[in-house]
Amino acid sequence: MSDCTTKDILRQVKDGSLTIEDAMLQLKLEPFHDLGYAKVDHHRRLRQGVPEVIYGAGKTTEQMIGIVSDMKKAGQETILITRLSMEAAETINAVHPLCYNQAGRIAVIGDLPKPSGLGKIVIATGGTSDIPVAEEAAITAQALGNEVLRLYDVGVSGVHRLLSHMEYIMNASVIIAIAGMEGALASVVGGLADCPVIAVPTSVGYGASFHGLSALLSMLNSCASGISVVNIDNGFGAGYLASMINHMEAKA
Amino acid sequence: MSDCTTKDILRQVKDGSLTIEDAMLQLKLEPFHDLGYAKVDHHRRLRQGVPEVIYGAGKTTEQMIGIVSDMKKAGQETILITRLSMEAAETINAVHPLCYNQAGRIAVIGDLPKPSGLGKIVIATGGTSDIPVAEEAAITAQALGNEVLRLYDVGVSGVHRLLSHMEYIMNASVIIAIAGMEGALASVVGGLADCPVIAVPTSVGYGASFHGLSALLSMLNSCASGISVVNIDNGFGAGYLASMINHMEAKA
Amino acid sequence: MSDCTTKDILRQVKDGSLTIEDAMLQLKLEPFHDLGYAKVDHHRRLRQGVPEVIYGAGKTTEQMIGIVSDMKKAGQETILITRLSMEAAETINAVHPLCYNQAGRIAVIGDLPKPSGLGKIVIATGGTSDIPVAEEAAITAQALGNEVLRLYDVGVSGVHRLLSHMEYIMNASVIIAIAGMEGALASVVGGLADCPVIAVPTSVGYGASFHGLSALLSMLNSCASGISVVNIDNGFGAGYLASMINHMEAKA
Amino acid sequence: MSDCTTKDILRQVKDGSLTIEDAMLQLKLEPFHDLGYAKVDHHRRLRQGVPEVIYGAGKTTEQMIGIVSDMKKAGQETILITRLSMEAAETINAVHPLCYNQAGRIAVIGDLPKPSGLGKIVIATGGTSDIPVAEEAAITAQALGNEVLRLYDVGVSGVHRLLSHMEYIMNASVIIAIAGMEGALASVVGGLADCPVIAVPTSVGYGASFHGLSALLSMLNSCASGISVVNIDNGFGAGYLASMINHMEAKA
Amino acid sequence: MSDCTTKDILRQVKDGSLTIEDAMLQLKLEPFHDLGYAKVDHHRRLRQGVPEVIYGAGKTTEQMIGIVSDMKKAGQETILITRLSMEAAETINAVHPLCYNQAGRIAVIGDLPKPSGLGKIVIATGGTSDIPVAEEAAITAQALGNEVLRLYDVGVSGVHRLLSHMEYIMNASVIIAIAGMEGALASVVGGLADCPVIAVPTSVGYGASFHGLSALLSMLNSCASGISVVNIDNGFGAGYLASMINHMEAKA
Amino acid sequence: MSDCTTKDILRQVKDGSLTIEDAMLQLKLEPFHDLGYAKVDHHRRLRQGVPEVIYGAGKTTEQMIGIVSDMKKAGQETILITRLSMEAAETINAVHPLCYNQAGRIAVIGDLPKPSGLGKIVIATGGTSDIPVAEEAAITAQALGNEVLRLYDVGVSGVHRLLSHMEYIMNASVIIAIAGMEGALASVVGGLADCPVIAVPTSVGYGASFHGLSALLSMLNSCASGISVVNIDNGFGAGYLASMINHMEAKA
Amino acid sequence: MSDCTTKDILRQVKDGSLTIEDAMLQLKLEPFHDLGYAKVDHHRRLRQGVPEVIYGAGKTTEQMIGIVSDMKKAGQETILITRLSMEAAETINAVHPLCYNQAGRIAVIGDLPKPSGLGKIVIATGGTSDIPVAEEAAITAQALGNEVLRLYDVGVSGVHRLLSHMEYIMNASVIIAIAGMEGALASVVGGLADCPVIAVPTSVGYGASFHGLSALLSMLNSCASGISVVNIDNGFGAGYLASMINHMEAKA
Amino acid sequence: MSDCTTKDILRQVKDGSLTIEDAMLQLKLEPFHDLGYAKVDHHRRLRQGVPEVIYGAGKTTEQMIGIVSDMKKAGQETILITRLSMEAAETINAVHPLCYNQAGRIAVIGDLPKPSGLGKIVIATGGTSDIPVAEEAAITAQALGNEVLRLYDVGVSGVHRLLSHMEYIMNASVIIAIAGMEGALASVVGGLADCPVIAVPTSVGYGASFHGLSALLSMLNSCASGISVVNIDNGFGAGYLASMINHMEAKA
Repeated sequence: MSDCTTKDILRQVKDGSLTIEDAMLQLKLEPFHDLGYAKVDHHRRLRQGVPEVIYGAGKTTEQMIGIVSDMKKAGQETILITRLSMEAAETINAVHPLCYNQAGRIAVIGDLPKPSGLGKIVIATGGTSDIPVAEEAAITAQALGNEVLRLYDVGVSGVHRLLSHMEYIMNASVIIAIAGMEGALASVVGGLADCPVIAVPTSVGYGASFHGLSALLSMLNSCASGISVVNIDNGFGAGYLASMINHMEAKA
Repeated sequence: MSDCTTKDILRQVKDGSLTIEDAMLQLKLEPFHDLGYAKVDHHRRLRQGVPEVIYGAGKTTEQMIGIVSDMKKAGQETILITRLSMEAAETINAVHPLCYNQAGRIAVIGDLPKPSGLGKIVIATGGTSDIPVAEEAAITAQALGNEVLRLYDVGVSGVHRLLSHMEYIMNASVIIAIAGMEGALASVVGGLADCPVIAVPTSVGYGASFHGLSALLSMLNSCASGISVVNIDNGFGAGYLASMINHMEAKA
Repeated sequence: MSDCTTKDILRQVKDGSLTIEDAMLQLKLEPFHDLGYAKVDHHRRLRQGVPEVIYGAGKTTEQMIGIVSDMKKAGQETILITRLSMEAAETINAVHPLCYNQAGRIAVIGDLPKPSGLGKIVIATGGTSDIPVAEEAAITAQALGNEVLRLYDVGVSGVHRLLSHMEYIMNASVIIAIAGMEGALASVVGGLADCPVIAVPTSVGYGASFHGLSALLSMLNSCASGISVVNIDNGFGAGYLASMINHMEAKA
Repeated sequence: MSDCTTKDILRQVKDGSLTIEDAMLQLKLEPFHDLGYAKVDHHRRLRQGVPEVIYGAGKTTEQMIGIVSDMKKAGQETILITRLSMEAAETINAVHPLCYNQAGRIAVIGDLPKPSGLGKIVIATGGTSDIPVAEEAAITAQALGNEVLRLYDVGVSGVHRLLSHMEYIMNASVIIAIAGMEGALASVVGGLADCPVIAVPTSVGYGASFHGLSALLSMLNSCASGISVVNIDNGFGAGYLASMINHMEAKA
Repeated sequence: MSDCTTKDILRQVKDGSLTIEDAMLQLKLEPFHDLGYAKVDHHRRLRQGVPEVIYGAGKTTEQMIGIVSDMKKAGQETILITRLSMEAAETINAVHPLCYNQAGRIAVIGDLPKPSGLGKIVIATGGTSDIPVAEEAAITAQALGNEVLRLYDVGVSGVHRLLSHMEYIMNASVIIAIAGMEGALASVVGGLADCPVIAVPTSVGYGASFHGLSALLSMLNSCASGISVVNIDNGFGAGYLASMINHMEAKA
Repeated sequence: MSDCTTKDILRQVKDGSLTIEDAMLQLKLEPFHDLGYAKVDHHRRLRQGVPEVIYGAGKTTEQMIGIVSDMKKAGQETILITRLSMEAAETINAVHPLCYNQAGRIAVIGDLPKPSGLGKIVIATGGTSDIPVAEEAAITAQALGNEVLRLYDVGVSGVHRLLSHMEYIMNASVIIAIAGMEGALASVVGGLADCPVIAVPTSVGYGASFHGLSALLSMLNSCASGISVVNIDNGFGAGYLASMINHMEAKA
Repeated sequence: MSDCTTKDILRQVKDGSLTIEDAMLQLKLEPFHDLGYAKVDHHRRLRQGVPEVIYGAGKTTEQMIGIVSDMKKAGQETILITRLSMEAAETINAVHPLCYNQAGRIAVIGDLPKPSGLGKIVIATGGTSDIPVAEEAAITAQALGNEVLRLYDVGVSGVHRLLSHMEYIMNASVIIAIAGMEGALASVVGGLADCPVIAVPTSVGYGASFHGLSALLSMLNSCASGISVVNIDNGFGAGYLASMINHMEAKA
Repeated sequence: MSDCTTKDILRQVKDGSLTIEDAMLQLKLEPFHDLGYAKVDHHRRLRQGVPEVIYGAGKTTEQMIGIVSDMKKAGQETILITRLSMEAAETINAVHPLCYNQAGRIAVIGDLPKPSGLGKIVIATGGTSDIPVAEEAAITAQALGNEVLRLYDVGVSGVHRLLSHMEYIMNASVIIAIAGMEGALASVVGGLADCPVIAVPTSVGYGASFHGLSALLSMLNSCASGISVVNIDNGFGAGYLASMINHMEAKA
């Protein structure tokens, strides 16, 4: 519980400027306001001018238009909508002009913030089929104020493709390694890089890929250090976490 | 390939201070020296005075003693041995005095470095049975130069235990959330915190926990943002990644 | 075997008012009449004025209209049809006016009974995508004579949303906790509440949610006491069981 | 947040009988005291004279003796220890005399409370190999103040064994159906009974029983109404929930 | 190798009525003719007047019409086509009049043979959704010369439905028990009957039925004796095996 | 319900030779006596002189000695004990002399009955490691009155081994095909034989055999007709079912 | 790093015919040129006149037309497109005339090379439903310069079909064994043949075939020697590897 | 069927030098003699001076000594025993001196043959824990007449270790890639090499490696061409197949 706020309420009760009933109401709300405050504080730091995020899957176009209107009224400058179909994007665009990334099925309303992180986020994919997940991650990271470097189709079955971009790997602040099928990209990247690697298994593949299970298990078992894994096809989650890491700063 | 090094070699060849044969030998070694250099550079930053790590599982006591001797000769001040049995620890201790953490089955040879990270790493566990994995993570993080705050037995079936430590959660630089069984700790922590959360499923549980599978899937599916997952029982991996994130700095 | 019925038959045989052949016929039917009676007795207690249930999946509209007609003839006042498509509902509505809940794909023919249970049934969901399952549970419980309190979108990744409704949680008679993805809601609710919690995993999610398996395993492994689990997406089963518990009474 | 408590604090601040600092300290602790109070209230109702529970697995004998001593000092009359080995039971017995149920690997310290529930809890098992889980459930339920009726070895491959106990099934307040292998007992019981049925899959079996998975899936798929499922081999959880249901009472 | 055939060839070689080259050709073909003969012998016994079977799935209507034409030319009186869509059935019917069972998606061309087995084959299903699989089994068994008794919707969640048909169960020669979801029907039937029970898991169900896996595991784990299992939804296989058992006769 | 019995009771009530209370008691017990009678009748037919079976796993030596004593008193001539360890067998042998089959871990007390079936039961195994399961099946079948022919180590990776025994395959009444690893034996035998084939997957193998899962799935998917499957390693079940099929006879 | 090339560069630097800057550029590119060279060398050997391969799945018709145009410009005589729909094939055909294999969904642009391998590649399938995978393998192998012998529908449930083609099996250079369902073909072929066998599980089947998992596990567990397995339905991979083996030659 | 042999028999019958009965007996045995001959022929080619193989797991020391004695009498010069414990090796050594490889748990009796293949077999492992499987493969390959090159601990998390041995990779005739955990080694090697790669997943790892499942799936999903997979930990199978490929020669 945030001491200063509580202290204020108590002071006001003591000096009579606040009735006991109103104080009770405020105190009842306090803990979660406090929690919220903390979050907001954090968010403010992380998000100066950056998007609020709407998860588009399962929402109607009308719902999304309404949410965007509310956010705009609340002063939100940049808004991100993920898992958005082309059709829905077109309908929303008529009301709230947006920029739509078809591959990643993700839209941005408003301007992208200027990159503000510690360094660049490199997004590498094993194949071209992994690009939709990669673009979801890339636009998310950009919308959260990061410079993004795309390194697509550098899968380990042709490891020289990856090696010929060693300078990108070595200079990255965070790397997002996205791959389906055998998912080995994460391990190879993890072994080369000196920064956190976020592995994203994709459902790309057939047969014994079992809709991403193969890549998921492979990535979890990586013997390289500094790797962690998010859900299958979760480009947004990887982009969000990468941005969080790329904006690390000293804490008291 | 690191330009300046190569340029030096070429210059020396040009001015005759290096024979073609020696140049070839050096160039042959370069790429991986270069790779190694990059890694070492990173490691240097990350590891000033911190341990080299020995994975103890499957190594004989003799092998470990030998490796430690080599490392000491090479000037290594702090050495970490993971997955180390009590018996092996005692035998090694007779030759190389060490400090053994019985719960985490991890030993430190030499002094722990002074904390040098951006902030504190909070390590939370769902139950007391998760403590071995937590201690592996904690000692690893400490040995890599981090201040660690232990928050054990704060599982979500009594969420007030977790909430009563909100100030730790809110002030953490990185949080490692360790839980077996339903693995819900990661989601709750992820929803409260404003920093990266590394989730570690543990094999604690019985029946439908299927040796950690339940917690693993649960953590991968977390709908909180900023969470990623490492392998079941992989305390070391979580500690290592947490340290990496806690030592983030600006990159050109 | 219900003694009084059998005793009556025997008495009638003894005093000649029933032939041996008719008695045999009746006795042959007895055991299962008896079983049926027991059930009916139970149902009578549970169901005064409450619906008979038709599982709509896989039944044609004609079949359902026929069954409803039969039930109405038999005096049934309230009839519940689950897993009912909008189209089928419209067709049935032309013959038997009904009230259709589109989210829950469930219809009620006749009036809802007045709540008669021990207390309120709280239905909580992790997200908005879980609402279809929740509505199936809610309408079922209402149709069986329960007061229902909906607490939607209180997932654990924002635990304050749940905590801000603590008074509902604490005053519930039974709680139905419905969640997909990581399914952690059940554990958190189970740790807060002092009443039975029925957990319903949903197939909401993607990737490693494996169509509800993740939430299912998570809920089965809950370390909170007083929790049990029904099949994935089984809103009806949860509503039915919750009603049963909410109508518990002393048994000789 | 419990109004009256908070109101008192505020009143005391207003009239000066409490300093702001002390008030803040108390308010800081309030929310979780409140939560705790709620839980305790519940527990008081449920547990008048009934045991606190210690989960014995993974605890040393010394730890358990210490915990029991603390509980006794705190006035606890009955204490339950689950997953307790014979050897540990003997050691503890020397300090804290206890009554040990070898089959269920569960011990009771102090007297069992007088049954206080709505009716009887029937515990049925498919075979004799399921008895350990059944006894864990039975002793738990008895220790929580329930009358328990054991119906062992009434598996569905000889359904007459079950049917010959119909009067127990029909008169039960709650039934715990425990079975390994095909786990069909839950469905058959669920179809016969008019009360809640708690299904407990056991790891009894071999081959395609896959350590309880077969029974677990079977029970989750039961088409009988009023059934819910707990974790494989979780006798304690079933006994605890059964007691909770058997002590249902009207709630404002 | 069939002695008499080989002996004849050798005799013909010896007396010069067969050249060595022709003998070699015949001998080369012999072993598999012999195998074929054995099979045909068996089939002749089993199939007097009974159908050849065409697996319709994945075959074009033209292919099926052609195969039927060939069979008819070869004197086949009854022909069975399984996994046949309504549309394909109509097209074939125009050329080869057939009798189509819509539920079982199976067609018979020609007359059904008179029942010739040891007794009746009882086909029991847990629910009405299992009827398609049951009809595939039933028509198969009838086409192979068996009297079939259908006992549909006698699932174990209302065990009295099954018990009220005990005389059918007790008098069956072979029973085919077909059920999805928890698959418990096989065990209950197996415990009541004194004849072989062929269990057929079906893909009926949702959630944790995992497309028949739940029923399959349940049936494999049945603790009743005399039960064996065929593939999920394999009505044909069950009908075929049941017919084989129902036509057992003494073998020298 | 057996008419004649019920009629008798009713007659006795009518003529006063039975009180209503005693009649009620008898009627209450009737249905399941009737069930029992049916079973006994069946068993009598199948078991003239053949063993009652004790499942040894999980029973103490004392329990087994007691059960055998009871059975002997009841006039049982042959008794079979499955899953019996060598040590237990020796202890029981001192009280009840028995014949122990070490490979199959199965014992027979009393004389084996003379074979009485329709023909021979052939038991084929893929390898020598499958012999324990095969012997359990073989001794079971012999104890139930069948002539057994063992065909061990005829796995499909050397299909000529199997083909060189074609006369056994062709003359079998029932075949039990036992195999671990790829489990292909069942399909090959099923394609060659003209009799029912009972497939028994075994847990023999390593790696991707996953304790018998590979063989189990393979056998369930056999495209040969007339095959059904029992649980992994369930030699007893296969022997019992084979005997049942080998003793088929006409039923009214 | 290829010594001679590097030496040349160094020599040119030494004698001034190459500036340091140009040398650096060349050295930077060297390692992967070298890698590439090795690959190309290998490819040149393997592919004289043989196709480059385009994986058609997920590529637009336009993309494929463009790639083919580029390849033709680069002098490629034969081009293979896999996973190609009939519609796309027709569109491409209008621009680049091709030969389309409908079953295998694979097209060849240009002439097939003359067979150049050590012997014949035999492609055997268990059933007719496996033919699509087989044709993908066959056309791939032919396009890579191999003579292919098709042996379709020789599944093990009629092992004589396979045995009657023993001379093909015995004379094969490499065998590709393709089967769904129980996947036993690989083991039987592996036991008969004296050459490498590449097993391809297919997703053909239903129920417990689990989309090819059953065949996959079965093939991995084969106890015949000389067998290895590729991914489910991976006809291309099998054809490619078979060609590689069929073109083995002595290496220094 | 081998023509010349059959022709001889027929000629002898024709000219009376063979009775019809003896001819029949010989012909009956022919087909499988023929099969055997074919195999032996193959084996002769492959095995000149090379070992017969004994699978030691599950065999007693006495059995193995007996088999070896028989083989020696039959003139076998080199004998290989796999899965052999140190203890059993010592006992056998006393009778039949052998050379035991402790890591690979494999023994050779007699001299290793001189390498006779097309080139070298490279055996690469991801880590040191994979060495037991690698040694089983290596000794098998050597005993079958191959030169073996060991490349241990070159896992992809430090890809430079692998790249620094490119010349071995490029010059290999066949490569065996052995790895547990993420199993990515196969893909990277497959992408670099121009020869067949046999992938062996190992059960090395913990947690989500699920006893080799992770590596198995990863390897099956490799997008590099020319890779196939054998069972988890199947070093022998990989060594055997590699030898077969390394001894490929032209076939008529």
